[in-house]
Amino acid sequence: MSGTLHVVGMGPGDPELMTLKAARILASAPVFAHFAKIGRAGHARNISQGKTAPDATELRFDYPYTTEIDLADPRYLAGMGEFYEQCAQTVAKHLQAGRDVALLCEGDPFFYGSAMYVFDRLRESHPTEVIPGVTAMSGAWSRCSVPMTHGDDRLTVLPGTLEEDELAERLADADAAVIMKIGRNLPKIRAALERAGLCERAIYVERATMRDELVCKVADLDRAPAPYFALILVPGRQGAR
Amino acid sequence: MSGTLHVVGMGPGDPELMTLKAARILASAPVFAHFAKIGRAGHARNISQGKTAPDATELRFDYPYTTEIDLADPRYLAGMGEFYEQCAQTVAKHLQAGRDVALLCEGDPFFYGSAMYVFDRLRESHPTEVIPGVTAMSGAWSRCSVPMTHGDDRLTVLPGTLEEDELAERLADADAAVIMKIGRNLPKIRAALERAGLCERAIYVERATMRDELVCKVADLDRAPAPYFALILVPGRQGAR
Repeated sequence: MSGTLHVVGMGPGDPELMTLKAARILASAPVFAHFAKIGRAGHARNISQGKTAPDATELRFDYPYTTEIDLADPRYLAGMGEFYEQCAQTVAKHLQAGRDVALLCEGDPFFYGSAMYVFDRLRESHPTEVIPGVTAMSGAWSRCSVPMTHGDDRLTVLPGTLEEDELAERLADADAAVIMKIGRNLPKIRAALERAGLCERAIYVERATMRDELVCKVADLDRAPAPYFALILVPGRQGAR
Repeated sequence: MSGTLHVVGMGPGDPELMTLKAARILASAPVFAHFAKIGRAGHARNISQGKTAPDATELRFDYPYTTEIDLADPRYLAGMGEFYEQCAQTVAKHLQAGRDVALLCEGDPFFYGSAMYVFDRLRESHPTEVIPGVTAMSGAWSRCSVPMTHGDDRLTVLPGTLEEDELAERLADADAAVIMKIGRNLPKIRAALERAGLCERAIYVERATMRDELVCKVADLDRAPAPYFALILVPGRQGAR
């Protein structure tokens, strides 16, 4: 009787990089939902433009805050928890009425995606399915023509929110590395890359696969802070064969 | 005058998990190429079944060996280098005749993909484009309904070919981890997971998103060796919000 919650990875930005399955589910879902920053068009929503059913119901979930409160502030976790709880209840109403809901998520849902928090709240009580997507990092390294991991390379993915000491230490120890969540962390990340001797090798990618994409060496980057849709790539050992 | 080399990520296995762009390029490419183990149907080829142009030329590149020679044996690197050089020359002939070539790759090409070695040899001399795909690990964690990385979680991707000591050490230090290239390394990987206290939390996934998919706890796994299309997931810290 319940509808199914489809958590749909939308890929890195270019609408053609969504999967055939994502496109099929979007085209038939009677309800679709997405997250957005207050006052802005949601990224997942932009990618889905023109792919949803013409008569579908749209649920827009505005984050109560994104960068206004520090992550370490206890109000952040509490406020976000309450927000995700409300999102889950809104989605649940549609599921209980027998309507499938497509919850859109940029990139791949289970790779740092907000949709996980709604999924976690509904997985026990409703049928769910997760459709993986191309990650932002895959989009970025493909656009840069940078083969990332060869043979026995290890890959380390680090959120830019970590402390500078930890970033520097882990970067120095990595074969290939990706730094996510750049934003206002850029000066700290850059310092960590310098300490690890990687500033020349590191590549900054902004809005990968999208129209206003920007790719440059971290060493050549002359502005800050970077927007949220940015990441830094440190390619692994090259040309092993 | 030259054709373009499209290096095309085909996703983890379910043909519906290829991107719209991969499907478009496949449907129009006059030539498509893929790697395979001698005597076996290639994995990328299987995924592309029915999606290529009816009159397209197929190039099948049989690996000279896969597990018959140890990776550390100098003959391995030399033989593979010669093999990729021949593949590149075969592809180059078509490009020089003005024909586009779609080089298929399971998962995402720049994430441990063989196609990188052909790309590296042709990138300077011919137009190239890389189409990212859904990785096997994204396919696996989506099918297991396991949110992998939340908030500040770090993700560590480790090839199972590493020494047991290094595996154990890096696993103990990880938030979320993925172990690739299982095969005959399974007993060693399992020992490393036990030493890191992660055997109960680790999930074994074989042929993710495919018909004969298998998912179970590593602790419940009672056979070895595992086939190549297997990986192990250690989910990050759960339910932070």
